[in-house]
Amino acid sequence: MTKEELLQLTKEIIQNADEENQYVIELLLKGLKRKEFNEKGSYISALLHAVGEYKDNQFTIKIPNTPIIQNDINIVHGGITATILDSTMGGLVHHILPPDKAAVTSEMKINYVAPGIGKELTCISNTIHKGNKTVVTEGKVFRDDGTLIAHSTATFFIINRG
Amino acid sequence: MTKEELLQLTKEIIQNADEENQYVIELLLKGLKRKEFNEKGSYISALLHAVGEYKDNQFTIKIPNTPIIQNDINIVHGGITATILDSTMGGLVHHILPPDKAAVTSEMKINYVAPGIGKELTCISNTIHKGNKTVVTEGKVFRDDGTLIAHSTATFFIINRG
Amino acid sequence: MTKEELLQLTKEIIQNADEENQYVIELLLKGLKRKEFNEKGSYISALLHAVGEYKDNQFTIKIPNTPIIQNDINIVHGGITATILDSTMGGLVHHILPPDKAAVTSEMKINYVAPGIGKELTCISNTIHKGNKTVVTEGKVFRDDGTLIAHSTATFFIINRG
Amino acid sequence: MTKEELLQLTKEIIQNADEENQYVIELLLKGLKRKEFNEKGSYISALLHAVGEYKDNQFTIKIPNTPIIQNDINIVHGGITATILDSTMGGLVHHILPPDKAAVTSEMKINYVAPGIGKELTCISNTIHKGNKTVVTEGKVFRDDGTLIAHSTATFFIINRG
Repeated sequence: MTKEELLQLTKEIIQNADEENQYVIELLLKGLKRKEFNEKGSYISALLHAVGEYKDNQFTIKIPNTPIIQNDINIVHGGITATILDSTMGGLVHHILPPDKAAVTSEMKINYVAPGIGKELTCISNTIHKGNKTVVTEGKVFRDDGTLIAHSTATFFIINRG
Repeated sequence: MTKEELLQLTKEIIQNADEENQYVIELLLKGLKRKEFNEKGSYISALLHAVGEYKDNQFTIKIPNTPIIQNDINIVHGGITATILDSTMGGLVHHILPPDKAAVTSEMKINYVAPGIGKELTCISNTIHKGNKTVVTEGKVFRDDGTLIAHSTATFFIINRG
Repeated sequence: MTKEELLQLTKEIIQNADEENQYVIELLLKGLKRKEFNEKGSYISALLHAVGEYKDNQFTIKIPNTPIIQNDINIVHGGITATILDSTMGGLVHHILPPDKAAVTSEMKINYVAPGIGKELTCISNTIHKGNKTVVTEGKVFRDDGTLIAHSTATFFIINRG
Repeated sequence: MTKEELLQLTKEIIQNADEENQYVIELLLKGLKRKEFNEKGSYISALLHAVGEYKDNQFTIKIPNTPIIQNDINIVHGGITATILDSTMGGLVHHILPPDKAAVTSEMKINYVAPGIGKELTCISNTIHKGNKTVVTEGKVFRDDGTLIAHSTATFFIINRG
């Protein structure tokens, strides 16, 4: 599609949008803008409005809970919980590896223990084991009322950076 | 944001968009349009352009591989692979349950075995065990060249539909 | 076999036993004796010479590392590590449930991170989530030099005691 | 303990043994005898009276269901199910690797779906993915009435044989 056609399609969608749709469009547009400013990050991270922080050997990512990430009964989609867990645990591993090493997820297991509701999700990750070939991590996702919604463990392979 | 402001923001983003950004905007807009037509589905499903099919006791979901779902090294984000697995296995469970029952993911484990590349991902799910309280399922994600990229097992709790 | 035949077989085995065999026979016999005294416990627990303790919301089981539980390269068999994890996490769940409830393992995942060697294994379990239908737990197995050898999470179904 | 003392202890235990104890002693003694004949195998394998077979790219292990492997409510202990799964999947991996390579379990996840009862357990393993560094496998444990009691996936690291 040309830029002209894109603009035309946007107009059409905005015209038909109800309040929730309008909010979602705003979130997506602001996410895209973030991505244009930070070309290195992923679209997913930008669209989820993820904010990460590394402190005291933990890596934490926070995302707002919006209609975009919810399933049809207004609970955060288990796949999004998995996405924030994978990103947070992977982010931790990249922080503790030397600059010439990277990591890929080898396996991840998630226990879903409470529904993802509220205004915000916070994912906190810790190292369980750092070996020469792999790093094993733990991740926990909390609601803003402090309730644990998911617990995860994962294994990351250490690889040489291209 | 008002509809007027949204349109203004869209114009700005489209103006600055490079070719990839333009393609991503097109995908998001078309996804939103899909959601407007099918209000019952989730935004995630619409934005991923997911197409599902139930046949021969298997539930299958296909999604195109686009920059939106890739990490910063152009491989499908593990969280998206988890999302399609959760959706496909959950979709299967809903197909085999009676209409007054629903299901929620209790736990999911994923083994990532090859990078997610190519044009399309296909996720196929099967039932491992159907009990009174839970259903245990298996899910596999394939590239369009037939390579398995991820294998998963999950447990779903059966609940009464509100 | 009659008691007479059993005794005959024992004589034969003891006669042919090398030093390690002799030690293993001693361990098995002492385990059996323990079982005769404590009929409620399982043979596995008796044969493993397991000692459990509940304290500060944690349940701990210690077992000596002997040739019986090792694989053919003198490292503790992963299945035994799984056994002590299942027993310790299950023991924890039974401690925190009311007397009319019991629990069965629904799923367990183990990450093996270091070889099981040394004189003794200590398994410590904690509660991750206590719900109405399930309890999710964490278990860790340590060598006597403090090295973590395995990390596990598990889900237990709560059932009514017969 | 000297051989004399061992024999004395055996006499004592056999004297006090009830019918079940007697059967367990018989099983343990016959297991020990098996181990004396096949020094390369593990005690666990001998004591479980495990019989393995590799055929059509699958590795299978069968074990009799005896009081030794049951918990206090006469159901096979989840740790024994884990042991047979680990042994069967590990056995498969050793069969498909070249002679200069070995494998160690990196992680294993088990879903327990039905109680382990009946006369015998059969564990069947298959390869999900064979890579350069790891092999991912699937294992299933069946009762003799054909009921699936457990499903597992595991990752094995490939290492060089000493």
